[in-house]
Amino acid sequence: MNTIGTALKLTVFGTSHGPGVGCVLNGLPPGLRVTEEMIQEELDLRKPVPGIGTPRAEEDRVELLSGVHDGRTTGTPVTMFIRNKDVDSSKYDIFRRIPRPGHADYPAMVKYGDAHDLRGGGQFSGRMTALLVAAGAAATQLLGTIGVRIAAYTQTVGGIADEKDHDLDDILRSRGNDVRAADPAKAEEMRKEILRAREEGDSVGGTVRCLVVGLPVGVGEPFFDTIEGEMAKMMFAIPAVKGVEFGAGFGAARMRGSQHNDPYMIKEGVVVTVTNNAGGALGGLSTGMPLVLRVAFKPTASIGKEQRSVDLVEMRDAHLRIEGRHDPCVVPRAVAVVEGASALVIADLCLRGGFIGKEPR
Amino acid sequence: MNTIGTALKLTVFGTSHGPGVGCVLNGLPPGLRVTEEMIQEELDLRKPVPGIGTPRAEEDRVELLSGVHDGRTTGTPVTMFIRNKDVDSSKYDIFRRIPRPGHADYPAMVKYGDAHDLRGGGQFSGRMTALLVAAGAAATQLLGTIGVRIAAYTQTVGGIADEKDHDLDDILRSRGNDVRAADPAKAEEMRKEILRAREEGDSVGGTVRCLVVGLPVGVGEPFFDTIEGEMAKMMFAIPAVKGVEFGAGFGAARMRGSQHNDPYMIKEGVVVTVTNNAGGALGGLSTGMPLVLRVAFKPTASIGKEQRSVDLVEMRDAHLRIEGRHDPCVVPRAVAVVEGASALVIADLCLRGGFIGKEPR
Amino acid sequence: MNTIGTALKLTVFGTSHGPGVGCVLNGLPPGLRVTEEMIQEELDLRKPVPGIGTPRAEEDRVELLSGVHDGRTTGTPVTMFIRNKDVDSSKYDIFRRIPRPGHADYPAMVKYGDAHDLRGGGQFSGRMTALLVAAGAAATQLLGTIGVRIAAYTQTVGGIADEKDHDLDDILRSRGNDVRAADPAKAEEMRKEILRAREEGDSVGGTVRCLVVGLPVGVGEPFFDTIEGEMAKMMFAIPAVKGVEFGAGFGAARMRGSQHNDPYMIKEGVVVTVTNNAGGALGGLSTGMPLVLRVAFKPTASIGKEQRSVDLVEMRDAHLRIEGRHDPCVVPRAVAVVEGASALVIADLCLRGGFIGKEPR
Amino acid sequence: MNTIGTALKLTVFGTSHGPGVGCVLNGLPPGLRVTEEMIQEELDLRKPVPGIGTPRAEEDRVELLSGVHDGRTTGTPVTMFIRNKDVDSSKYDIFRRIPRPGHADYPAMVKYGDAHDLRGGGQFSGRMTALLVAAGAAATQLLGTIGVRIAAYTQTVGGIADEKDHDLDDILRSRGNDVRAADPAKAEEMRKEILRAREEGDSVGGTVRCLVVGLPVGVGEPFFDTIEGEMAKMMFAIPAVKGVEFGAGFGAARMRGSQHNDPYMIKEGVVVTVTNNAGGALGGLSTGMPLVLRVAFKPTASIGKEQRSVDLVEMRDAHLRIEGRHDPCVVPRAVAVVEGASALVIADLCLRGGFIGKEPR
Repeated sequence: MNTIGTALKLTVFGTSHGPGVGCVLNGLPPGLRVTEEMIQEELDLRKPVPGIGTPRAEEDRVELLSGVHDGRTTGTPVTMFIRNKDVDSSKYDIFRRIPRPGHADYPAMVKYGDAHDLRGGGQFSGRMTALLVAAGAAATQLLGTIGVRIAAYTQTVGGIADEKDHDLDDILRSRGNDVRAADPAKAEEMRKEILRAREEGDSVGGTVRCLVVGLPVGVGEPFFDTIEGEMAKMMFAIPAVKGVEFGAGFGAARMRGSQHNDPYMIKEGVVVTVTNNAGGALGGLSTGMPLVLRVAFKPTASIGKEQRSVDLVEMRDAHLRIEGRHDPCVVPRAVAVVEGASALVIADLCLRGGFIGKEPR
Repeated sequence: MNTIGTALKLTVFGTSHGPGVGCVLNGLPPGLRVTEEMIQEELDLRKPVPGIGTPRAEEDRVELLSGVHDGRTTGTPVTMFIRNKDVDSSKYDIFRRIPRPGHADYPAMVKYGDAHDLRGGGQFSGRMTALLVAAGAAATQLLGTIGVRIAAYTQTVGGIADEKDHDLDDILRSRGNDVRAADPAKAEEMRKEILRAREEGDSVGGTVRCLVVGLPVGVGEPFFDTIEGEMAKMMFAIPAVKGVEFGAGFGAARMRGSQHNDPYMIKEGVVVTVTNNAGGALGGLSTGMPLVLRVAFKPTASIGKEQRSVDLVEMRDAHLRIEGRHDPCVVPRAVAVVEGASALVIADLCLRGGFIGKEPR
Repeated sequence: MNTIGTALKLTVFGTSHGPGVGCVLNGLPPGLRVTEEMIQEELDLRKPVPGIGTPRAEEDRVELLSGVHDGRTTGTPVTMFIRNKDVDSSKYDIFRRIPRPGHADYPAMVKYGDAHDLRGGGQFSGRMTALLVAAGAAATQLLGTIGVRIAAYTQTVGGIADEKDHDLDDILRSRGNDVRAADPAKAEEMRKEILRAREEGDSVGGTVRCLVVGLPVGVGEPFFDTIEGEMAKMMFAIPAVKGVEFGAGFGAARMRGSQHNDPYMIKEGVVVTVTNNAGGALGGLSTGMPLVLRVAFKPTASIGKEQRSVDLVEMRDAHLRIEGRHDPCVVPRAVAVVEGASALVIADLCLRGGFIGKEPR
Repeated sequence: MNTIGTALKLTVFGTSHGPGVGCVLNGLPPGLRVTEEMIQEELDLRKPVPGIGTPRAEEDRVELLSGVHDGRTTGTPVTMFIRNKDVDSSKYDIFRRIPRPGHADYPAMVKYGDAHDLRGGGQFSGRMTALLVAAGAAATQLLGTIGVRIAAYTQTVGGIADEKDHDLDDILRSRGNDVRAADPAKAEEMRKEILRAREEGDSVGGTVRCLVVGLPVGVGEPFFDTIEGEMAKMMFAIPAVKGVEFGAGFGAARMRGSQHNDPYMIKEGVVVTVTNNAGGALGGLSTGMPLVLRVAFKPTASIGKEQRSVDLVEMRDAHLRIEGRHDPCVVPRAVAVVEGASALVIADLCLRGGFIGKEPR
């Protein structure tokens, strides 16, 4: 349902064009510094950038409805709410009859019937991901208390790929550019690729690479709640995600064991691996090396071009053209979402594993 | 922990060299035909094949300890147990001191301490996947009652790839060959690739492609319990999995929206899509088209070649050579595991969504 | 944590003196009629009555933040929020140092530390029970679709007991009087008992009896999620509850089997029991007879009389007198809470058991 | 379903006359001493005593199928299995047609249909409670590491009541007598009451009182997972339980606040309460005082006397006489069950609250 997590439980609610979107985050220890400003800062990273983003101008102002008193968590659930403001629902009625390709319109109407709130995509809107960013900001704060840091960046946009395996410092610099690339030169190429798609009335996909560094050894809960499995499940909750891989990922399938196995070595008194094809996880447990994941995003489903669909009332073929406001590429905005989503999963597993205490901090 | 699923809950237990491995499957409606023979048939598909598989000769004889009476489920939890027989634990003691690269030895010992049962890999052994096959056989049986069928095959082994997108009938034929390929010509090439790796004292990775056909529209539970997310989480519980993708997957990241969006059409009075880049899921819900996933497996971690590691007692670099018995490639045996694991997830979601009733059948 | 339920999941948040209290109710099928007016009507039944209730004058105006569109559920989580208005936190600071007997002050401060929001009792305030009433109103609406009705009444206040086993019609009449008694004559006696306690600067306890009628046979999920167990767990979440019993309850412990066993008979073609000592449940499953439970409430912990306590800073004995505003007896207001809480549990179990479908209604 | 607990998860399986009954206990930290002997010792306390117990002569020999190696937990799930041996199913067929009053036969057959395994009561048999004792033995062992001890005794049998509020030492002595009374003189009276019921072809109910001492302050998880609520839910899973109360319990409903509130005092530098009407819990959290609960058991449903029932095939009134083997009073055997069940709940909450670490012990 709309809840994820075991020790740190997140419940999201709301729809794109209802009163707002919000979430309840349960399990934060008491005494953690959490403020609206801190959350807002992360939310702003998800805002559309003029030119490459949607013109929908949501202020995305978060309000803390519970769980924080005098800037610190009280040990009760933290509720965040973002009111919807710039709502234009008029254009969505037709999609109840002629579902948009690539969107959830058709399966959602079969599942929920007439009562489905399709306006703005309803619960299937990318707008819901603001909540992963907002709640993720609190999780990030919690992880900071044990020295865990998370950073992601745009690795590819369409055919433009940044081949270098950037480290944390590189990535943190990506916060400075519109497409959230780690390499400024690539950023410009990616930006052009997005604009090109937009000009064609089209959209383009891409990938996000994410690093989690500073993890203790042994985070993850076998047999099923592996660090990779929990991360992957969360990633697939982000609309438009089509694939997730760790370390060498699909490339590992083409390797020999002697190439892929990461040899151990002692470095400054600590056990590390020489390479990190495992991407920081073995047996579903963190190894102490950076957790490395790549997430594939499909091109935005809403495009300006005319598309083929069906008329569900008359049960015949039909065409439609989508007039709404959309991002020609979700990837730059998705970077903050992948970061927030990762923080939520890792914080949950760290709490579950006892790596973060339950005592007041 | 060791439990997965909401309406169909699976708990696995046991270790590679303990008394045995087993599972409890809870949530099967009463009156479903389930027998030891039926489960055994699936388990036999996971057995190592002479030449390309490990020489460990487990009989893998399943015993039903509860939940079935006169060949039908009673509505109480179904417990399956497979006793371990061909156990040789002598060779594992050294890995407590010198952990094997690519295995869970090191993080598991940090997490569980001295009490960790490392023999045969303990709970991190591939042997645990027999339980996904066994429990999956019951889930498959349940899915059959609503016409859902699942089939997987070996799509690549190392550099040998079967480029054709096989359909269900093709795949079912794969049960006839050792490597579980869908194309007999490719099967032979893959077999040779595996033997080549073995001769070199090495191992090789590969990918499994899986199809779920006959799904009703709307299977999956937003926001977090998407059909892709639930499948992915389960797949990462299978040791050696490094990546999961649906439909166009990572390829979608290189596409334009106009290419990737699957147009709707009416076919024999039913809404279908012309293409299936989505891989059968939109908004986390099944679309009615086949669910298509690809799973990447790394090469087997145990190889005959000498490897670099560390001595955890003396905290210095060390080398080790693994003498045990292993599969040079896990992919052929993993096909049955992916099928069983998929059946468990899909049956759970179908029960949750009310697509399968709770009444006696 | 702050979440309960399996198929119908309720998460509550907020504190007595924070921005407000609220809840997320997840699992209501799409298309169910739910309005703010409908919820408000139930909430008003929990309001304090002049004379026998607290003078804290909360308007308790509920706002629907999500999940309802045009007066019908959309199939996404329903969020309700009640802003706190009449807040006077000034008197609570001293209780951090000198905890109030009978309140959660002391254990909560040990558990949550300085960050605990003790104002108004924080999360331990009776104010949280408004959420059980509000969410319960939606659950009641859902249960109505399958003909299940719930009603409770004040059975005893201090020494004043209503010995008659009232049926549903009797009870529904109780909505008309201040103390929520089922017998108007007893109502007056109870009212006097409450006023007597108040005049003495004291408080008084009592019991609530609740009936659930129209239940299908077989509601409840063995082995642990029995209908009695789920009801009891929920009841103990209501502050001040000290005991829960079903049917003959503690009286059954003094009976012989030949007295206690309820014989079966056929009545108008239906299997019923002659008596209902079981209180409508056998083996954790509903029998089709009315589910009957009794809930014991302790006297309100806040009393005007001086009480003995300790000074936690100086670690010495101390005395305190509570000046705030309180109910001399919570029982009349608790009747609506027991009804709402029961509706939530029964609706959850009915959804779990497939007695209510998931299809749009 | 058949699973309970959050950090310490118990899944029970099996039926009275199937291959056996068993359970999986998940969440025990690695390195805890657990042996078959230790479990057996507790199981033996639940065995029927000649004269006052059933003549069914089950050996109840527990086998550890997983999770323990060399007498210590490994950190993986602990599976226990007890094979059924002395099974006589012949007498149960008639109850499919003429359900036994006071048993789950009728609702279970409506719920599960023909496939319901009614032999020996199936999953509704008191035999399942052996698993609470067995798993409870491991939980008790875990609680011992933080100094928490649990003891229960028979407080009443029919009209014979032991009015004294016994403390832990008194109770531990109860292990020495057949009826598990805390007072030897009462034990003899209770024994006679049981024999009297048996001679009349009848049965008799009673109550168990249970103490948990040594609890840290703050055990329990608001809002719903209160220490009382979690305990109560577990207790109602024990067949025949009709009521649960804490501290003053139902008696509190007749009290004034000034009587019921437990004043705080400092004793040997520790905050304690002068009285313990709260029964060791406030706001759902442990106070540090002994947790005190009372559990009401109905008289055994199976009695020798002829009873009135119905014929479900011909849908007419009928009579039946039960010939099987039964306990005339379940209370003496239930004492060990209440202890084990309590240990499971308390251990789960202690793990959840961080009162017991996850590190190897």
